[in-house]
Amino acid sequence: MTQYNIALIGFGGVNRALAQLVADSNERWDAELGLRLNIVAVTDLYFGSVISPNGIDARMLVDTNFAKGGFGQLSGGSAEACNERVIRHAPADIVVEATFTNPVDGEPAVSHCRWALERGKHVVTTNKGPVALASDELKALAARNGVMFEYEGAVMSGTPVIRMARKTLAGAGIYGFEGILNGTSNFVLGRMEGGLGFADAVKEAQSLGYAEADPSADVEGHDVRLKVVILANELLGGKLAPKDIACEGISGVTVADIETAAQEGYRWKLIGSASVAEDGRIEARVAPRRLPLDHPLAGVGGATNAVSFKTGLLGAVTVTGPGAGRIETAYALLSDIIAIHQAGSGASKKEAA
Amino acid sequence: MTQYNIALIGFGGVNRALAQLVADSNERWDAELGLRLNIVAVTDLYFGSVISPNGIDARMLVDTNFAKGGFGQLSGGSAEACNERVIRHAPADIVVEATFTNPVDGEPAVSHCRWALERGKHVVTTNKGPVALASDELKALAARNGVMFEYEGAVMSGTPVIRMARKTLAGAGIYGFEGILNGTSNFVLGRMEGGLGFADAVKEAQSLGYAEADPSADVEGHDVRLKVVILANELLGGKLAPKDIACEGISGVTVADIETAAQEGYRWKLIGSASVAEDGRIEARVAPRRLPLDHPLAGVGGATNAVSFKTGLLGAVTVTGPGAGRIETAYALLSDIIAIHQAGSGASKKEAA
Repeated sequence: MTQYNIALIGFGGVNRALAQLVADSNERWDAELGLRLNIVAVTDLYFGSVISPNGIDARMLVDTNFAKGGFGQLSGGSAEACNERVIRHAPADIVVEATFTNPVDGEPAVSHCRWALERGKHVVTTNKGPVALASDELKALAARNGVMFEYEGAVMSGTPVIRMARKTLAGAGIYGFEGILNGTSNFVLGRMEGGLGFADAVKEAQSLGYAEADPSADVEGHDVRLKVVILANELLGGKLAPKDIACEGISGVTVADIETAAQEGYRWKLIGSASVAEDGRIEARVAPRRLPLDHPLAGVGGATNAVSFKTGLLGAVTVTGPGAGRIETAYALLSDIIAIHQAGSGASKKEAA
Repeated sequence: MTQYNIALIGFGGVNRALAQLVADSNERWDAELGLRLNIVAVTDLYFGSVISPNGIDARMLVDTNFAKGGFGQLSGGSAEACNERVIRHAPADIVVEATFTNPVDGEPAVSHCRWALERGKHVVTTNKGPVALASDELKALAARNGVMFEYEGAVMSGTPVIRMARKTLAGAGIYGFEGILNGTSNFVLGRMEGGLGFADAVKEAQSLGYAEADPSADVEGHDVRLKVVILANELLGGKLAPKDIACEGISGVTVADIETAAQEGYRWKLIGSASVAEDGRIEARVAPRRLPLDHPLAGVGGATNAVSFKTGLLGAVTVTGPGAGRIETAYALLSDIIAIHQAGSGASKKEAA
C-alpha cells in the first residue's frame, strides 16, 4: 500500500467532494487500488489555510460548517489563504488544484501549478486555465522535476477523454475530434426542441443549477473553446491559443431553426471540433451545427457530454458521459492520482505494510 | 526502440490485416510509439506454416496469392500447419492468436494460448473462445510465467472496452454494464425499423458481408452471450460460463413490435448486460429490450457497437465504435501489443538503437 499526502488548493465543491471520497473510500482504495490519500493541507480564499503534516481528518473537514477564515481555528491553521506557502512548504506528494478557471491568463492557478512542480510535487487539476493557456510550460516543468501534471477533469469532468486517447487509442491514428463539451448549452438546445424559447430554456437551466447567473461563457461557446484548445493541443499536437479558434455560441439559434431541422431529420448541437488538415495545420472551431440523426453525437441529450474521436484505423470512436458535477469532477482528480500511482512515480510517497 | 518478434497463428482476415499494418506502419510506430514488429512465424490450416528467425517480409506476405499449402514454398516453410511447433519453438516474443472462435470448448485456441504462455511468450488474441472459457487458467499461467495475456479485440474489435475499464475507469466503481455487442443483429433491427421483415433484413446483412451463411450465432444472441461472459468476468469479477446466462435473440421480434415501440417512443435493441446484485451475485442476460429514446444505447445505429458502463461515481459512461472489421480487429491486436510495450515487459525483446 502506498499513501500519498495531498494538498487541496481551493475548497469549493470539487475539492470538498474529493475530501468526501477520501473520508468514505480510503479503505476500499487500499484494498482495490493499493493506495490511500492523506490530506496534509487545505487552502481556500474564503476559509483560510491549514497545514497538518500528520494529516487532517477528512470526515471532520467535510462535516464541519466552517465560517469565513474558519481554518484559522484548526491546529496549524490560518484565517488567510497562504497559497504559496502551502503549495511550496506543505509536505504534500500531490497538489490538487481546483480553484476557479481564469480564461484570460489562467492565474492564479498557473502559479499554483508552477510552485508545486518546481518543488517536485505532482499536480492534478480540473482547472481549464493552466491546461489551456500554459500546458507546454507546465509539462516541461513537470518533466524537468520528474513529476506528473495530470488534468483529465479539465475537459469532461470524470468522463475519460485525455486518458482514453493516450491509454486506449495509441496507434489508432487520431486525426480529429468533434465534441459536445458544454452540458448547459446542450440542455438548452434540448429544451428548445421541446418548444421553449432560448431565454426561457436558459432560465430553466439556471433554476436547475446547470447555468450560472451570467450564462454567457456556456451559451456563447467560450467554455467549449477552452476545451477545444486543450484537446487539440493534447490529441493533435497543436499549439493553439483560444484566439486561434473561431467561436460562435447558440444564442443565434431559434426555435424555428430547430423545428425545421427536426422536420428534415437533423438536430442542432453546439460542436467543438478540430482536425489536422492536409497541409498539417490544425483547423479548429466552435459553432452550432445541424447533425444528421445518424451522427454519433446526434443522440447525446440533456446535460451529457461526448467526444467523438476520428481515427484512421477505427473510424469514429465516441465516449459519452457526465461533463460536470461535484463528485464526477472529484473522480477526475482521483483518476489522475491513480494514474500517478500506476506510473509508480509517487515522489516522496510512503510505503507502508 | 524495441523490436518485438511476433508469430501469427491463423492467417485469415485479421492477421492478414495486422501484417498489412506492419508493412505500412512500422516506420511510424517506431517514431511515435518506440516499437517495431517483426513477423518471425505464421501458421494457418490452409496455407501451412513458416518460421524465419530473421523475419518474414510483411509486404511479401500480404501481396502474395498463396495457394493451399503455399507457405511450404517459403524458406523455413511447410505445407502443413505445425501450430504446436511454431508456437513453442519459433523465436517469438508475442504470439498473436486469431483463429476461429469455438464456442463449445475454445479449442484449439485454448491450447495455442497455453503452449505460448508456458514457454514465456506473451499472447494477444481476438478469439472469444479462450477468453470466455479459459481465462482464469490462462491468466494464472501468464502470471506464473511473467508474461501478459491481452484480449481487447475479443469484445468490440478495436473499440476499447476492457482497457478503457482498466485504465480509465479504475476506482469509479463499475457495478454493471449494458451493451450492443453484435453489429449484425443491430443492423437487422435497424432495417426492420425501415419496414423490412426479419428474413429480408438478414438476407441484406448477408449480402453486405455482415452476417454469415448461418446467421444464428448473431441473431440468436450466442455471440453476445460469449461477450457478456468475458465482460462480466473481467469487469465485475464474475466466474460465469455461457450456460449461466439466459439468452434470447431477435428472431422473435416482429416489425409490428418495432412499429409499436416507435409510436410509444421506444426502440428495440439486442442487449447483453450484467450487474452485481445486492447479495453480490452477478445477474447477466442477453435479450431484446425496448429502450426509451434517451437511453445511452438507443441511438446506436447500423453495425456499430457500444457498451455503457454503470459506475458509482460517474453514472453511465458509454463507449461507441466499430464492433467488427478486419483492420479494426487487427488494431485491437496492435493495442494489446502497445499495452505490453508500455508495461515494459517484452519477454525476450531486443533493444536496438
